[in-house]
Formats: sequence, C-alpha cells, structure tokens
Amino acid sequence: MPWERYEGGQRDAIIGGALFEGLARDPHDAEQRLAAGEIRVRGCQELGCVGSLAGIYTGSMPVFVVEDRTHGNRAFCNLYEGDVRRRLNYGCYDDEVRMQLLTMQHEVAPVLREVVERSGGIALKPIMQRALHMGDELHSRNTAATLLFEREITGTLIALAAEGNTGVDALLRCMTEGGYFFLRLSMAAAKATADAAHGVPGSSVVTGMVMGCREFAVRVSGLGERWFTGPPPDLTEVTLFDGFTVDDVAWMGGESSLTETVGLGGFAQAAAFPLQRYQGGTPARMIELNEQMYRITVTEHPDFRIPVLGYRGTPTGIDVRRVLDTGIAPVLDIGIAGREGGQIGAGVVRVAMECFDAAGAALRDSTR
Amino acid sequence: MPWERYEGGQRDAIIGGALFEGLARDPHDAEQRLAAGEIRVRGCQELGCVGSLAGIYTGSMPVFVVEDRTHGNRAFCNLYEGDVRRRLNYGCYDDEVRMQLLTMQHEVAPVLREVVERSGGIALKPIMQRALHMGDELHSRNTAATLLFEREITGTLIALAAEGNTGVDALLRCMTEGGYFFLRLSMAAAKATADAAHGVPGSSVVTGMVMGCREFAVRVSGLGERWFTGPPPDLTEVTLFDGFTVDDVAWMGGESSLTETVGLGGFAQAAAFPLQRYQGGTPARMIELNEQMYRITVTEHPDFRIPVLGYRGTPTGIDVRRVLDTGIAPVLDIGIAGREGGQIGAGVVRVAMECFDAAGAALRDSTR
Repeated sequence: MPWERYEGGQRDAIIGGALFEGLARDPHDAEQRLAAGEIRVRGCQELGCVGSLAGIYTGSMPVFVVEDRTHGNRAFCNLYEGDVRRRLNYGCYDDEVRMQLLTMQHEVAPVLREVVERSGGIALKPIMQRALHMGDELHSRNTAATLLFEREITGTLIALAAEGNTGVDALLRCMTEGGYFFLRLSMAAAKATADAAHGVPGSSVVTGMVMGCREFAVRVSGLGERWFTGPPPDLTEVTLFDGFTVDDVAWMGGESSLTETVGLGGFAQAAAFPLQRYQGGTPARMIELNEQMYRITVTEHPDFRIPVLGYRGTPTGIDVRRVLDTGIAPVLDIGIAGREGGQIGAGVVRVAMECFDAAGAALRDSTR
Repeated sequence: MPWERYEGGQRDAIIGGALFEGLARDPHDAEQRLAAGEIRVRGCQELGCVGSLAGIYTGSMPVFVVEDRTHGNRAFCNLYEGDVRRRLNYGCYDDEVRMQLLTMQHEVAPVLREVVERSGGIALKPIMQRALHMGDELHSRNTAATLLFEREITGTLIALAAEGNTGVDALLRCMTEGGYFFLRLSMAAAKATADAAHGVPGSSVVTGMVMGCREFAVRVSGLGERWFTGPPPDLTEVTLFDGFTVDDVAWMGGESSLTETVGLGGFAQAAAFPLQRYQGGTPARMIELNEQMYRITVTEHPDFRIPVLGYRGTPTGIDVRRVLDTGIAPVLDIGIAGREGGQIGAGVVRVAMECFDAAGAALRDSTR
C-alpha cells in the first residue's frame, strides 16, 4: 500500500521498525522518509515471510527458515518477542521493545542457529501432528507444540551447555515463558504448504489469507498473484478482556490466517477445547463451527487429525466455489489488538464474503 | 498373601526381585526362601508405595518421595523401567532387565536426586492440572505430564551439564523415550491424596483400589485398614493387540487404580480422546462413561478439570453407598498384561460389584 494508507498500530509498527533498524532519527523523520519512499515497505507474503499481527520484519532480524523438502520451497519467520506486554508486533516501540529485540538477535538467535545446524534441521510436521492430539490447533494455541519443539532440542541444548555455551539459558527462557514460541513456526510451515499448492491452473482453492489494517484478502491457486479483498472479518464470537468494547478493536496486519488456509486454527478448533477459556465459546459450538468447515473444503488432511471427531482429518483446502455455494465463510481463531496497542481479546471471527465474491468473479472471468 | 497363593507374572516378578537383590542363587532357591519366609513379601500400599502392574520394589531401588504438604503424609514410587518390552513390572527378569534396573539405580537416580534437591521439590499438582488440558487422564496417558515434568527440570539439567555432570543424558533419555515416565508420579500423588482422605469416621468414600493376581480390593475411609475383595474387573471394553484373546490375559498386581480413586484415569477419560487409538472406544462412549462416574462420587474436583465438559471438575471420591444404590461400578483405564509377560492390550474395565457389596456390609455393621 502507499504509505498514507497505513494506520494505527500497523503504521506505528512500521515506524518502530525503521527506528530499530537505524533508518531514521525519530518517528517524524521516519514518517517523512517512508512517505518519500526512501524507506521501502513490502508485504510479508511476497517475500515468503509470515508476520503475527503487525508482523514487522527489518533487514537485521534473524529468521527461521522453514522448508518444504518435497516441493523445495521455503518460508521464513522471525522470533516470538516473548511474553511481554509491549511488543513491536502489537505496534509498540520504545527502549524496552528495542532491548528485547536485541536480546533475540544477539543472544537467542545464535544458539538457535547452532541447534538447528547440529540437528540437520528439525522436522515440524511430526510436532504439529502430535500437538493436535494435545489440545493445540496451532493458531491461537501452540502450548503443546512449543513443549514438543523444546523437547526436540533439549538434548542439543544440554550438549551445548556441557561445551560451555552460555547462551543456552536465554533460549530456554524465551521458549518456556509463554506457550506461543511455536506459533511463528506453525505459520511459516503453513506458508510453505500453501505456496506449494499455489499456481495449479484452474484451481479454485485458497492458497493465502491475510489481514491488513484496512481490509482482508485471499489468494487463489489458479489466479496468480492477485489478492481479492473485502472488509475485516466479522467479530460476533469474540471475547474482549474486561473494560474493552468493539470500538477499541484495531486491525493491524498478520499472516496467521495461513494456518486456517492449510486446515489448522479455526479449521481444527475441535482439537483445542482449552481455547474456550481464552476466546470464549463452548465445546459444542467449537465442534459445530469446525464441522461447518468440511462443507467448504476439498479434502480432509491425511496427517492432521482431530481426536474428538474420531481422528477425522482436518477440513483442508478452502474452495472459493463451495464458499459461494454454501454461503459459509471460513472461520479464524485470532487474537485481537486494541487501538492503544497490546492485546484486548481473542475469539473466532468469520472472513467477509466480499473476498470470495471478488475471487469468484475472477474465476468466472478466467474460464470464459 | 502366603507365598503359595502368588501366581503367574506376579510370582515371577517377586522371584526376579529376589534375584535382583541378591537374596537367592537362582529361581528355585528364591522360591524355597520365599516359601520358608526367609525372604519376606509385603503389599506396596501398606508401605506407602505404588507399583505399576507387578509393581515390585526391592530394598536397593531408588524411589521418588511424593509429599502432601498440607497433610504431611508421603508416598513413594520407583522409576519407570523405560520403553523396553521386557520389564520386571511385567513379570520379566533376565540380564537385560537387570542391566536396565542397574542403569536406573546408578545413572539416572543420582541425577534425579540432584535435580529434585536443587529445585527444593517439584510441584506435581500444577503439572497434573495442565496435563488434563493436553490430552492426558494421568493413568493410561501421561504424555503431556511427562513433557511438562521434563520442561520443569530442563533448566536444572542444563545447569548440571554446564558444571560437567555427565549423567544428564541418561536421565533425559529415560524421560523422552516413552510417554510413561510421569505415570509413577501421578500414581504416587494419587496415593498421597487418597491416604490424606483415609480415616474419616463414618465416611463411605473409597480411599484405595488395588489389583492382585487373584482379586481386586477396595479400602474405605471410615473402615480402617481392611480391604474388601472381589473377582478381577470385567473386560468388556478392552482392545487386545493382534493375535491375543481374553484367555491370554493375566492379572498381576498394581496400584494404578489409585488414579481413579482420586478422580483421574477412567474418571477423567473425556480429557484424553487420544486414548481411543490405544484402548479402543469412541469419544462419545468416553464421555458417557466419564459422566456415569458423577453418579457414584461425592464431589467434583476443584482443580482437575475436563475441557470438553466445559471445564467441569472430575468426579471425585467414590461413595460405596452410591455405587450400591445406582448399580454403577467404577471404570478403570488400564494396560493389560499377558500370561507370557509383556503387555497384550489396553482398555476400560469395570470393577466387580462384589468389592462394594462387601464394603457395604461392613459399613452397615459399623453403624449398627
């Protein structure tokens, strides 16, 4: 988007990113340079990246590289900033945020690199499969996957500690202090999966969903790099923290709905009943919403399975035509940001039908 | 029991224990010394111990000490022998079993002691609470609890490794190779809990359940140290591994039904849908059996909760009178041993009503 279209936390986060990278003296200077195009902003997904909420990447940030070894494509994700209230990905930037980002960069990332290199890469899919049997749906809940990832690298961490590596503690702390360390990895894995499904001629399967500060957009396998937009999702089934109302909700950005794109998140919510304490709802309603998704998808996932549904595979591959035929739009499990920054709630939201109307029209045009 | 009453895997396991401890030259010598009373056998529960299946403890075995800090009582459990087919607790004893026991004793236990001492004790209840939200019921499934326990001590393991402790790897291996490391701890925690509820005058609440090689027995809070016996549980809802029939089933011993005694295991099975792949059944049937247990218990657990039931507390405190009034006997999630040793199946079994008939008669006598 042109700079003047960015607003709220998303705009603040970009300014924060410019300051963090040393590209501007102060926020005013950053705004001017961004408006002048001296500092360039691009969308995460065109670079294979996934961002949580405001989802800022700057040039110096370390990233995980997630590879689809079958298809050879890659996706990237930066690191969870930690279990702190103020984070760049919620649109906050100050000395505290900066120090945390530098800690990730200089203390955590080097150890992670060592761990990943020694292990020859860490297989994410087995972790994701198991996490679905342990209460995660890998969007709003990544508690089990975070534990399983940690278990996967514990042996290497102990070997590094025995060799005198002193950075091990920082990594351990950042993995254990919250249950969200794995989220970026599940998102990047979803991105790699969705990209592998992209570009099938004639296919009406959705291969990308993304939130922006003004609109929501979907990408379709057979329709190239176009994004079909509509208004932000419908908020009806969300729980806002005490004292907040829908007027406080701010839309930022975020690639986290890539998880739903590949049959996780809202499409696997019946695997994650603990979410009822976080985003409201009842187990019966979670099952009902999850079952709706089978009506708009082309298949059931062969490996991602839901125990309460008798290990039925998750509904996978949203078909634009089925969405339009049934009038059922995809549901997303999301965290909700506030106008003043920070998280103010969570819940199940539903993508606006306009995105699919636009994609459907393009599909009809393409087959004429 | 007198020695001649022991049979099958339970008898073999006791002989194995005598050999492991160096109390006899060979199996024949062990049998003679056991028959003569030179080697004494006592029940686990009278010593505060919990045994899984054959549940053998010998004098030199290291144990975890589990403490109820509110009531000051303690329970003990020895260590999971590891993810190997032949184990003393399934009635097997040979050089392989012996070496594994010695590894636990000389390599694993000293590191565990160091870890527990440094941490000032590890709180088990928070781990158990969280595990119930992650697919465990803490009897037949302890996958999440094992991970959470491991996470709890990882920082200490890394510190020990940094100091040059070389035993850390052995402990890590024994925790990660299967999902059952935590089972002994959940059983010992259940024993400590059940013992704290024992001895309330007039109480008809069950404070102990135990399997033997010939019968099943229950203990009642208001009836002292008597055990009320009946035949082994009913096998109707179990899944035997391929090639086995009910004729191959062997009853050994085992305190694992203490978990059900305190509202876990079969009383929390709706928290553990992944069990359907291990012990058969469907999610609907697991919910139905779990809900039956509310009809025979005196309360709902304030801390152990079941996500799919809207976080309802688990049914806790089996009341002998309610069992007799409703005709509903407790259900247990158990692993099933075979006559030739080793595990041959798993499933939900139901305690024989005779145990409760006997306890009910004693309750009537006591209030006369």
